[in-house]
Amino acid sequence: MRTVAILLLIAACAAHGGNAARELGVPLDGEPGAFNAITDVAGVAVGHVTLIEGDAVRTGVTAILPRGREDHTPVFAAVHVFNGNGEMTGAHWIAESGFLEGPVMFTNTHAVGAVSEGVIAWSLKNWSTPISLPVVAETWDGLLNDINGLHVRPAHAGAALDAAAGGAVAEGNVGGGTGNRAFDFKAGIGTSSRVVEIAGARYTVGVLVQSNFGKRPQLTIAGTRAGRAITDLMPEIHAPPHGEGSLLAAVATDAPLLPHQLERLARRVPLGMARTGATSLNSSGDFAIAFSTAPAPQTDGSPLRAAQFIDNARLDPLLGAVVEATEEAILNSLLAAETMTGRGGSKIHALPHERLREALVR
Amino acid sequence: MRTVAILLLIAACAAHGGNAARELGVPLDGEPGAFNAITDVAGVAVGHVTLIEGDAVRTGVTAILPRGREDHTPVFAAVHVFNGNGEMTGAHWIAESGFLEGPVMFTNTHAVGAVSEGVIAWSLKNWSTPISLPVVAETWDGLLNDINGLHVRPAHAGAALDAAAGGAVAEGNVGGGTGNRAFDFKAGIGTSSRVVEIAGARYTVGVLVQSNFGKRPQLTIAGTRAGRAITDLMPEIHAPPHGEGSLLAAVATDAPLLPHQLERLARRVPLGMARTGATSLNSSGDFAIAFSTAPAPQTDGSPLRAAQFIDNARLDPLLGAVVEATEEAILNSLLAAETMTGRGGSKIHALPHERLREALVR
Amino acid sequence: MRTVAILLLIAACAAHGGNAARELGVPLDGEPGAFNAITDVAGVAVGHVTLIEGDAVRTGVTAILPRGREDHTPVFAAVHVFNGNGEMTGAHWIAESGFLEGPVMFTNTHAVGAVSEGVIAWSLKNWSTPISLPVVAETWDGLLNDINGLHVRPAHAGAALDAAAGGAVAEGNVGGGTGNRAFDFKAGIGTSSRVVEIAGARYTVGVLVQSNFGKRPQLTIAGTRAGRAITDLMPEIHAPPHGEGSLLAAVATDAPLLPHQLERLARRVPLGMARTGATSLNSSGDFAIAFSTAPAPQTDGSPLRAAQFIDNARLDPLLGAVVEATEEAILNSLLAAETMTGRGGSKIHALPHERLREALVR
Amino acid sequence: MRTVAILLLIAACAAHGGNAARELGVPLDGEPGAFNAITDVAGVAVGHVTLIEGDAVRTGVTAILPRGREDHTPVFAAVHVFNGNGEMTGAHWIAESGFLEGPVMFTNTHAVGAVSEGVIAWSLKNWSTPISLPVVAETWDGLLNDINGLHVRPAHAGAALDAAAGGAVAEGNVGGGTGNRAFDFKAGIGTSSRVVEIAGARYTVGVLVQSNFGKRPQLTIAGTRAGRAITDLMPEIHAPPHGEGSLLAAVATDAPLLPHQLERLARRVPLGMARTGATSLNSSGDFAIAFSTAPAPQTDGSPLRAAQFIDNARLDPLLGAVVEATEEAILNSLLAAETMTGRGGSKIHALPHERLREALVR
Repeated sequence: MRTVAILLLIAACAAHGGNAARELGVPLDGEPGAFNAITDVAGVAVGHVTLIEGDAVRTGVTAILPRGREDHTPVFAAVHVFNGNGEMTGAHWIAESGFLEGPVMFTNTHAVGAVSEGVIAWSLKNWSTPISLPVVAETWDGLLNDINGLHVRPAHAGAALDAAAGGAVAEGNVGGGTGNRAFDFKAGIGTSSRVVEIAGARYTVGVLVQSNFGKRPQLTIAGTRAGRAITDLMPEIHAPPHGEGSLLAAVATDAPLLPHQLERLARRVPLGMARTGATSLNSSGDFAIAFSTAPAPQTDGSPLRAAQFIDNARLDPLLGAVVEATEEAILNSLLAAETMTGRGGSKIHALPHERLREALVR
Repeated sequence: MRTVAILLLIAACAAHGGNAARELGVPLDGEPGAFNAITDVAGVAVGHVTLIEGDAVRTGVTAILPRGREDHTPVFAAVHVFNGNGEMTGAHWIAESGFLEGPVMFTNTHAVGAVSEGVIAWSLKNWSTPISLPVVAETWDGLLNDINGLHVRPAHAGAALDAAAGGAVAEGNVGGGTGNRAFDFKAGIGTSSRVVEIAGARYTVGVLVQSNFGKRPQLTIAGTRAGRAITDLMPEIHAPPHGEGSLLAAVATDAPLLPHQLERLARRVPLGMARTGATSLNSSGDFAIAFSTAPAPQTDGSPLRAAQFIDNARLDPLLGAVVEATEEAILNSLLAAETMTGRGGSKIHALPHERLREALVR
Repeated sequence: MRTVAILLLIAACAAHGGNAARELGVPLDGEPGAFNAITDVAGVAVGHVTLIEGDAVRTGVTAILPRGREDHTPVFAAVHVFNGNGEMTGAHWIAESGFLEGPVMFTNTHAVGAVSEGVIAWSLKNWSTPISLPVVAETWDGLLNDINGLHVRPAHAGAALDAAAGGAVAEGNVGGGTGNRAFDFKAGIGTSSRVVEIAGARYTVGVLVQSNFGKRPQLTIAGTRAGRAITDLMPEIHAPPHGEGSLLAAVATDAPLLPHQLERLARRVPLGMARTGATSLNSSGDFAIAFSTAPAPQTDGSPLRAAQFIDNARLDPLLGAVVEATEEAILNSLLAAETMTGRGGSKIHALPHERLREALVR
Repeated sequence: MRTVAILLLIAACAAHGGNAARELGVPLDGEPGAFNAITDVAGVAVGHVTLIEGDAVRTGVTAILPRGREDHTPVFAAVHVFNGNGEMTGAHWIAESGFLEGPVMFTNTHAVGAVSEGVIAWSLKNWSTPISLPVVAETWDGLLNDINGLHVRPAHAGAALDAAAGGAVAEGNVGGGTGNRAFDFKAGIGTSSRVVEIAGARYTVGVLVQSNFGKRPQLTIAGTRAGRAITDLMPEIHAPPHGEGSLLAAVATDAPLLPHQLERLARRVPLGMARTGATSLNSSGDFAIAFSTAPAPQTDGSPLRAAQFIDNARLDPLLGAVVEATEEAILNSLLAAETMTGRGGSKIHALPHERLREALVR
């Protein structure tokens, strides 16, 4: 049997929790939350399991729990599929019911089944009822990872859920994003948040992305065509060619919103992606899920439940926050990642910070 | 200028308000409301303008106002398109916003533009703000009606809105259904309702249809293949052949439901249609809109609004009520219609009640 | 380690291959194909793995290969979700690409992950490329089956694929339908087909269902309220209550159709379901996938491909065939099933043939 | 009766046909076609009717005919709704059938009905069959235009269709865009095109937009935050406030694509919009329709038709072309527009070219 090294990179969190782009001086709009992370939305917990082993295992699992590990009260939610070359299981029931009942899991393409089973097993053990329709999304990390080796097992999903916590979120080569690349640079997990004010109330929008998309010449950072300024450091791939991949995004907010309004938030994720220069290629699986942690609709034993929601006419700050936080989360997923060598000796370089800074100044 | 005879068939209401199928003894499940009509949902008002003039004008407009003529507080709503060979304007904004902001209008295919303009004009005159995105749906009545003559004018839409009232609803050859046929019999407007109990609370579901679909051999009534029992009385058409048409349905309820739940109600309309034997042909424009008149979400000047909703797990009685009321509304649209001769002498026969009764008994 | 009894019920095929309802004398429209099965569409292969073990394992896997085990040329396809309380993985990419690239797998709700992994493993071994986005759908069989025991393993998916063959198809308590029930009777897998003629050409439509839905009083067979005629023989359940479930349907045709036309076929499945009395409850996961085995679009090394398709105006016979074959496949799934005792001694009775015959005659 | 001044600005075409942004020196990627216009797709014809009359009529109609005025063979088509605060009639049937059967019309919000009726009347007169489900989309021009005056009449739609021609396309304050504004500058109609090569074959993608969206600080041109460089010249509005509006886009291509592939093209329009800084506000009606003029599927009297299509794996150049051409068409819609004074003396300034040039250089 294979042995698996589970690296819980919690220690690494503080180092670059959601601030890589800002520390580099990329000009960005809006006011981020305390951690500039999806966890700025109170209650949201994130856990990574990172599998880096031997020459060819470069993958992992990222778990996002809307209300933490203990509270599994469903949250209003919605899914938006921009280009569906990929998988997000559980989306049908979210669309039908308006609720997300368990965690959101990001992993690699061939690990969807294992993670799905792992969520069922974990929920049977930890909660009173199984999550029968798990939400699992994926990106293809086969350039660096032995994806056909099926190294992610159900227990890894459980471990990611067990590791979930609030606070700073590890980014880059961690969790489901461990073996990812974007714009021909190393990428992975990134996060960001925005705080907006609507009629005197302050709401937080947090985005966590798993970035695995885009071609080098497209890369645009704060309006600068960075991918044309840095044309070397291209991937050294010793593997069959494979289409550029996908963007996964989880959007959390504490603003009270109904499911059809959350769909509107999820739909803005591609606009944030577009700001980085991407055009969403045929091979891209661009999925966004949005949920609201607003106090759960009350139940008093009656079938009637109560919900609050923000008037449509006041949604614009939230819609804009999704665009901004998505853009910044993608930049963080690039800037927090480090050069990695993997399967067959393939190597993908990190985006060089100093050269980017120079390009931005010019 | 053409002159137009506007026949407001209000006097005819009491005669067959939603009870044609029951009076004939068709066995039907469920408990209808007082009028067995969409107007059993408190506040809902229906108005018809029926245009029957000379040899070839056989058309009209039906208006459904969720909260009557005075109260234009938007209602939560959703649209379901089963087979989209037709038009329901305004559907995009309902899907986006979750709200229906004005009336629902049914007319003929070539009158959508006129009725759309008429709703804008009427709302400018009667309400403080225009309904800029009117909801207008249609069926093709060109077998009996000179549809290319564009006899429905904007003012007819206003007249239908002005005529809107609660209580019994005229059915058959009235309003938008004036020139319609179904299963090769004369048809038109039909309505029905159901009262259901959920955890001690009673809710009403009302359906109003404009029936213009189906081939004779398909016609099934309470499980009896009535269309195979009555094979004569086929339409005498002196016009080019044209594909069988469409089913329009408005579903009203006083149950508090969110937009995505109302979409679930609207989606059950085709199941009621299927009970009548239809398979929804290529040429069918089968559109359903569902709305809830539950007390409007409160606004206190803040952007926060409050809504109640019934738990998904308790929806089944409402879902079943839509199927039942749709089936019965279609039967009523047939049984309330009378034989009509129209354009070019074309003639469509009414479904003969006595022969149907005999077929049902056998 | 658990041991698993894999019962390949191939011997049982001839006994009731798609003809249970006709043998009983249920009056049904249309002309079925040679086997009255989905396999009447040339090339389509079906394989079951049935897991019946000890007191509580009552589940399995059904595999449908559009072009058999050898030919994995993608087929045009489309998915329709009627009520999304369930899972069909792979649906996003089918919607995006218009193609189904691998098999369609039916299993139990908690086995989706295992079957998904099994399809990847099987395709890596048997085909040149992995099916990275497997299509796996499910029904909840937890009344009779120890669903939380996760007894379906990835290898069972492979075994079902290896068992896939043309010809008569085993029905009832087999494959993914092993532990299913419908209308409070034992149900499972059922299939049926129709041959239709369009402008002189003959096309076949085949449907295979996994039936797990409906309440007893709803059951309607050929217009007869059979569920009201047979009110005893209710399930003897020694388990927590659980919502009525789902209908899975695979629709195959050799008619050349484009993806958006296949979606129209898939959308007719609920109409066939409605003929059996169902209203699609909140807890129902009603999914249909339709595909065409028409000669694969040609590739000559150029990026241009060629496709034929039937004009929309000529689709009606195919649309009607889906409704008819779905209805009959559901009836077969009931009539081919046998009484089963499972988890905790729960027992679900088969629909008694003789009593049904009597009810139909009356 | 009102009199209407119809100004056919054909003479103005050559002046700024699709090249305003390039003439100013905005750096833009890709190779445009001969006219840098949607009409670079052979056969596509565009016609404007511009209504500028008195103090308050500032509106019009733009007609796009996929195959010119004579050839009304349907084209494969698809619609994408990004934010549905608006109307595009005819979308249901396009989604269902895969075909666009008539012209695409852009006008103001309250003129949808009149234009719809006008298309029916024009097609009855000019073609053998009526276009019963016209495609009409709109933006709200009520800041400058007396939109409630309903100045667009059915005959204007016919006039726009009669004026349709290939070649250079008038931009800015013309047609349906006459009274529009974007980013708080005057805007209107804009167009652009791209020529791409796929496996040795050259295909053209053309986009025509009607721009009426965005807030000043968002405006981004080629990565430069132009809206922050030019903060004066804000609209001088003497009217009630109204939400920022909409983006309409028609995407034409001669590449052979199936309907579901055209939907993928239409879906890229918002990515081009995002490059201009927009986030698609609640009040935005962002609609895109894409069609292919590839040789019509052949009919030989049989129900079988033939189509070619480009393999999904080769679509990327077309997807990217939509993003680029949309961005440039929007810029052209701004740069070709001129300062306008309208209803109640409200005034919206043109984007000052020289100041923009300076901002781009900095």
